Amino acid sequence: MSANGSHAWYFPDGDIPAPGDRPPHGHESLIMLNPGDEDAAVTITVYFEDREPDVLPVQTVGARRVRCLTISDPIDGYQIPLGQYALKLESSAPIICQIGRMDVQQPNLAYYTVMGHPAD
Amino acid sequence: MSANGSHAWYFPDGDIPAPGDRPPHGHESLIMLNPGDEDAAVTITVYFEDREPDVLPVQTVGARRVRCLTISDPIDGYQIPLGQYALKLESSAPIICQIGRMDVQQPNLAYYTVMGHPAD
Amino acid sequence: MSANGSHAWYFPDGDIPAPGDRPPHGHESLIMLNPGDEDAAVTITVYFEDREPDVLPVQTVGARRVRCLTISDPIDGYQIPLGQYALKLESSAPIICQIGRMDVQQPNLAYYTVMGHPAD
Amino acid sequence: MSANGSHAWYFPDGDIPAPGDRPPHGHESLIMLNPGDEDAAVTITVYFEDREPDVLPVQTVGARRVRCLTISDPIDGYQIPLGQYALKLESSAPIICQIGRMDVQQPNLAYYTVMGHPAD
Repeated sequence: MSANGSHAWYFPDGDIPAPGDRPPHGHESLIMLNPGDEDAAVTITVYFEDREPDVLPVQTVGARRVRCLTISDPIDGYQIPLGQYALKLESSAPIICQIGRMDVQQPNLAYYTVMGHPAD
Repeated sequence: MSANGSHAWYFPDGDIPAPGDRPPHGHESLIMLNPGDEDAAVTITVYFEDREPDVLPVQTVGARRVRCLTISDPIDGYQIPLGQYALKLESSAPIICQIGRMDVQQPNLAYYTVMGHPAD
Repeated sequence: MSANGSHAWYFPDGDIPAPGDRPPHGHESLIMLNPGDEDAAVTITVYFEDREPDVLPVQTVGARRVRCLTISDPIDGYQIPLGQYALKLESSAPIICQIGRMDVQQPNLAYYTVMGHPAD
Repeated sequence: MSANGSHAWYFPDGDIPAPGDRPPHGHESLIMLNPGDEDAAVTITVYFEDREPDVLPVQTVGARRVRCLTISDPIDGYQIPLGQYALKLESSAPIICQIGRMDVQQPNLAYYTVMGHPAD
């Protein structure tokens, strides 16, 4: 099984939406696909407008697996704060990444999604 | 007629929406454009979070044709299960691929679309 | 002024929405940006699911101009039919292209947009 | 910290939405991520359908920072006019850029987003 993808991904526009008071709840998700035959160790850097970036504990995406990480929830105890943020992912194996936001601040949900910008 | 496109495409974020009880029904579609002069034989691999991928029966996209495959419906008898999935497409001829989701879980529909991530 | 962009662009998923009976009306638009210093002559090919493609009369995008073409309306007398279609653009000068759909079939509008897939 | 990204970005489809009369207000945002270790000086060119482009005062994105510029508001005294426009960004350091529109002309908001088209 061939392994395509990139070792680095960027998402400029992150902004955690309000969860709302009933399902479906507003959230932001980061989806990582690892089509290759080696597990991927992914380092996620979180950028802000007015301070130095944070680096999250390394996340794993198994070989031949997709992983959906709800990034509006705490990740190994780290909570991305409210307001503008951006992400960089650096992976030990080639992966393909997309972000999705569900916004429910008005009666109907709205979606916002982009494929990441690949580097390397 | 020149033939541009890629032989492999990735879609990290698939999640079949509820159909709802009246039209327009929620669905997910995979759109494949074959601008070249040879038919394309497309192998679709479906990835999951917690088990090995499935491989669908080969699909054909005719020369100089676009094909819209409703991937929330059974495909040659194979039903993608509910929950997170991802797709890889491998094509014998260069194609260009996009995915679209219509979500009707709230009174108004919401759209979610990305161009695939090309490889090769 | 440098001229970046591509000479060919693909949009797999076109589907003209119903206009609805009051503004804002449902429509599909093709937006072409020509950042260079020469006018661009653009040949647009329309692909279908079950017949040979059509080729539209050549469209011009002026040097250092953006052009928004409402592709749900007739273009020099040619009307894209209802149902699935796809587009290829071939340009004499490098351009950058995006498509947008406004869907008003339910009380609220929904948006659907992708940057084109560049070739060349 | 490695610096990936591009020195030039294009956004064909800009169209400032009506703000509406209550929050959340309709707006358009340009999000620029500078993952590198040097500040980025960004020159933004605004293209129109029927006249020569405008060039905005140089904007800065700090090293290891993301910046969200609300481009529907005046930028250093320059107001992008209503109607179709497009953007080119030229940056002294590699950056990654995305645009987002919130449309509230109907009771529910609708989102419209693309990653920019990278050049260079």
